[in-house]
Amino acid sequence: MNSQKLLETLETYEDFKALSMTELEVLCSEIREFLVESVSETGGHLASNLGAVELTVALHSAFSFPEDKLVFDVGHQSYVHKILTGRKNEFVNLRKLNGLSGFPKTSESEFDVFHSGHSSNSISVALGLKRGMEQQGNPSHVVAVLGDGALTGGMAIEAMNDAGRAKNNIIVVLNDNEMSISENVGSIARHLAKMRTSPIYLRTKGTVSTFFSKIPWIGKGLYKGISAFKAAFRNMIIGDNIFEELGFYYAGPFDGHNLKGLCKVFNQLKDVGKPIVIHVITKKGKGYAPAMERPDLFHGVKAFDVKTGRSAPSGMNFSKAFGNAITEMAETNKRVVAITAAMPDGTGLNVFRQKFPDRYYDVAIAEGHAAGLCAGLSIAGTVPVFAVYSSFLQRAYDQLITDICGMNLHCVFAVDRAGIVGEDGETHQGIFDISYLTSMPNMTVYSPATYQDLKEMLREAVEERNGPCAIRYPKGAESEEICRLEQPFEKGKAQVLVEGKDVSILCEGSMVAEGLKAVQRLKEWGVSAELVNLRYLKPLDMDTIFSSLKKNKRGVVMENATRYGSVHSALCGYTDVPLYSVSVPDCYVPQGKIAELFELLGMDGESVAQKIMEEFFR
Amino acid sequence: MNSQKLLETLETYEDFKALSMTELEVLCSEIREFLVESVSETGGHLASNLGAVELTVALHSAFSFPEDKLVFDVGHQSYVHKILTGRKNEFVNLRKLNGLSGFPKTSESEFDVFHSGHSSNSISVALGLKRGMEQQGNPSHVVAVLGDGALTGGMAIEAMNDAGRAKNNIIVVLNDNEMSISENVGSIARHLAKMRTSPIYLRTKGTVSTFFSKIPWIGKGLYKGISAFKAAFRNMIIGDNIFEELGFYYAGPFDGHNLKGLCKVFNQLKDVGKPIVIHVITKKGKGYAPAMERPDLFHGVKAFDVKTGRSAPSGMNFSKAFGNAITEMAETNKRVVAITAAMPDGTGLNVFRQKFPDRYYDVAIAEGHAAGLCAGLSIAGTVPVFAVYSSFLQRAYDQLITDICGMNLHCVFAVDRAGIVGEDGETHQGIFDISYLTSMPNMTVYSPATYQDLKEMLREAVEERNGPCAIRYPKGAESEEICRLEQPFEKGKAQVLVEGKDVSILCEGSMVAEGLKAVQRLKEWGVSAELVNLRYLKPLDMDTIFSSLKKNKRGVVMENATRYGSVHSALCGYTDVPLYSVSVPDCYVPQGKIAELFELLGMDGESVAQKIMEEFFR
Repeated sequence: MNSQKLLETLETYEDFKALSMTELEVLCSEIREFLVESVSETGGHLASNLGAVELTVALHSAFSFPEDKLVFDVGHQSYVHKILTGRKNEFVNLRKLNGLSGFPKTSESEFDVFHSGHSSNSISVALGLKRGMEQQGNPSHVVAVLGDGALTGGMAIEAMNDAGRAKNNIIVVLNDNEMSISENVGSIARHLAKMRTSPIYLRTKGTVSTFFSKIPWIGKGLYKGISAFKAAFRNMIIGDNIFEELGFYYAGPFDGHNLKGLCKVFNQLKDVGKPIVIHVITKKGKGYAPAMERPDLFHGVKAFDVKTGRSAPSGMNFSKAFGNAITEMAETNKRVVAITAAMPDGTGLNVFRQKFPDRYYDVAIAEGHAAGLCAGLSIAGTVPVFAVYSSFLQRAYDQLITDICGMNLHCVFAVDRAGIVGEDGETHQGIFDISYLTSMPNMTVYSPATYQDLKEMLREAVEERNGPCAIRYPKGAESEEICRLEQPFEKGKAQVLVEGKDVSILCEGSMVAEGLKAVQRLKEWGVSAELVNLRYLKPLDMDTIFSSLKKNKRGVVMENATRYGSVHSALCGYTDVPLYSVSVPDCYVPQGKIAELFELLGMDGESVAQKIMEEFFR
Repeated sequence: MNSQKLLETLETYEDFKALSMTELEVLCSEIREFLVESVSETGGHLASNLGAVELTVALHSAFSFPEDKLVFDVGHQSYVHKILTGRKNEFVNLRKLNGLSGFPKTSESEFDVFHSGHSSNSISVALGLKRGMEQQGNPSHVVAVLGDGALTGGMAIEAMNDAGRAKNNIIVVLNDNEMSISENVGSIARHLAKMRTSPIYLRTKGTVSTFFSKIPWIGKGLYKGISAFKAAFRNMIIGDNIFEELGFYYAGPFDGHNLKGLCKVFNQLKDVGKPIVIHVITKKGKGYAPAMERPDLFHGVKAFDVKTGRSAPSGMNFSKAFGNAITEMAETNKRVVAITAAMPDGTGLNVFRQKFPDRYYDVAIAEGHAAGLCAGLSIAGTVPVFAVYSSFLQRAYDQLITDICGMNLHCVFAVDRAGIVGEDGETHQGIFDISYLTSMPNMTVYSPATYQDLKEMLREAVEERNGPCAIRYPKGAESEEICRLEQPFEKGKAQVLVEGKDVSILCEGSMVAEGLKAVQRLKEWGVSAELVNLRYLKPLDMDTIFSSLKKNKRGVVMENATRYGSVHSALCGYTDVPLYSVSVPDCYVPQGKIAELFELLGMDGESVAQKIMEEFFR
């Protein structure tokens, strides 16, 4: 038997805090091994966590958590933090129902202060924490850890603009891995690239600690005064840069895989008495060759083979169907242009990008700007198609209302990850889009049940509509069998997929598959259910809907979205036929397999059939 | 009789384009006079327009609109643009129903390309326009005009990050009047202040044209090459600055009241072949002493006396009631802190700021960041109260869902300008907040009908709740008589304000006054209506609501908000009592007096009474 690993001997956080630098270095390599093995079994975010091992260990070494506060941006890079804070053994249930979250969660640990999930919010939250703690005379440190990709989100800059004028000593650690999920784009990225390759970085790379120790002014006393700090660090601060202009001190860049150096950096810089950006360069996937070669593939992964790095091939899905459909359409329709906010792979737009690079705009993580860009593109006469995840499009809510729908502009939103998404949990569930999209005047809202539906809807939205259109489709809730159905498509019409005479089941998109299960079960129980594939969520095909309801005298509306602002709520006021809602209740939906969550929330076919029996037939 | 004014002789845009520089200078002073006289009669945005006279005239002189495109940020500074483009005679109906909009409107003129209204979107739209035009081989110029206040909105920086790496020659004119609506805050403001007082600005101030003409390299040919431009402008570009780091050329600052100089600047710089920021310093209220002294008072004004600058004193309103209530509460409750996004006066927080400067945070125009800041403040144990206009809080939709409600954080949103706001029109109507706030799990939503309601709600939200709370109240729709009512307040309960036996009228907030009118009219018609002041929009007081509905067997829900996601839609699924909705239909509500708009939309008491008769009693 091998000698016991250091990682296995750590029972408490105090055990960790007692480790020597040499032991911490050993620990880093054990954590890497653990991450690869663990995530290869469960799936999860790998590359970003492998890149953040030394960074996280150094933070925990230099700061006094949980008294000091650590706020992760986005949060999927918090695995190492979880390992260090007593949650190693729970990784076997990572991202599973009732298991360990892939994001920080206050319910898991006092070391987690904020439920991260979306991008670019960490500086705001850190500043709020710092100000709130100051109100109460608490001088502890607050650290925000932020990737370079998150820096392009306007909220991060808004926060720096506010923080920079303050005396609050918040510490922003810029974990610069030279890319967000995909490649990073824009001026800020170029700015960082310039900083990365500056002579100073090159000079200190890999030898941060030597660099520090050789310079006589690295005595702690010197950091007390601001001017002393300024004088001392003049050589390490690369001229003026965007951070300094936003009122922050800037130090770096530092080698993010030199543990000893990082510990020294954090210890030396944590008390400068002004907001500071500490710029750290890391390598995504560090230590695992397949992830270093293709960090994009190892951003969020399914279970994989550690030796080869390979996962089971994924089948067809709506994202791919969308990517193919828009690329095909763009061949003949020269007005189509495509927009993504840093998600070319996730949205399926990579196909389009390859074929039409000049008609493709990746705006970085900046959904609000993306929507404004769409407004301009539309006014100029092109037809912008913005492919974006449902929960991320929430960032452009005002822009959609004010800048696009307000002018009735012809823009198309391909709303991916609509409905329950599963393992990413609360922050990523796309359950609000029916509510927010249908509330916007002029907006047409589609929901395809099949790939063919999607294609027809996209074609109609681009070529026949002349105002804002949104097509919402799920990821992971696809039923292969249903999605491949080919059914006649009629503009503006819902489709009666199964005729019945006892009850109408009105389904949107991914709920059609569950609805069909309910129909089947009800049949066994002697109830003849009619299933309507709604297709149009706004405007609704009132003719088909009400003739079905009138005939069957009872109805259920099945929606993969919250009940507030649902199709059900829009229909109820117009009918006196009893109409029940199957939808996401008024709560945040936890992580888990989609099928499990449907069951948990009573949205699966079996539960719906039972509910129908209870409500109408007993 | 005086000799005819130049302004009066301008029939067409061509007439304007034919004017000489000397005539243009005369025109500027005539426009100023016209603005003061006109706005003193109608009310409107004055100070910002007085500040932008030469700037706007110079833009119209140097560019070829409407082939070139002009995008205003926010848009209330477009009056001069409207005067120049044939709409002078319509100023008598400024901001009135069916009259001239106070913002750009495509329906008014081909010179208006975008319906501005909200802040910080102009660079996104301009970039979209430019890219869309390029797709079609159209090389015309696109100009965005943006105030320094708008620059703090993250969307503007997101757009610059995207634009800066492109070859698209968009032109951003930074109209720097050293303040947004109130004082400008944050690092960007400080950055601009530094640039403003730089030796180069001081040297050129007031003599831009002389400066240009004396320097030999101001020949057009020199601008062709980028490097030539860089070399030539080195002296005018103040070192590195934030714009350059975002990939833009920067030129300025220039004196924004030197017409000749500005014309030259725009002509010289419009074809540099790279995105450029042209920094122009203007003085808000320029030329009208009362507005120069107190530009904040002359941002948006009611009709006023030209000689004294005085308006009729305004009475009590919900904003003031809120400002007083929170200031009073903060005396005893030390946990309360207040946040504004650049609206201390409009929200009534100026009182709080004066009394508790250390517990007051103005984050600049940055609603997304403000919400993230609230999250942090709440986690740290303070109770943040964010006072914000309903339509501007739309910018923080995702942050509310993800960062605040997702963690069930104790934050209070004082949602001002909820419901129809009147003269500001489409972009400012606060008609979506019931829909978006009630759709968020964990959110408590209040709607006060009286100042006392508001005070009770604020106290309860701050001191008794432990999760996110929003209180929505109108501006301008207050009925003085109703608002001053003092009625018993019971936690969690709606209040039956008038008992009746034929029909239930359920009203939220500002609709109580209209509901009472309906009750009165119905009484005359022999119908006994019961009026319920809902107070709580989420969770609803189902007991009071359903016992009223059950008793009266008919109901109407009156809401100053869109029908989608309304209280009505939330109730319908739970009752088989016929329930009608009085609410804003699925459209953008135009400008006009609030009373006129209520009438137009059938939301006034008289219309509601008639509707009730038609639906239930004939």
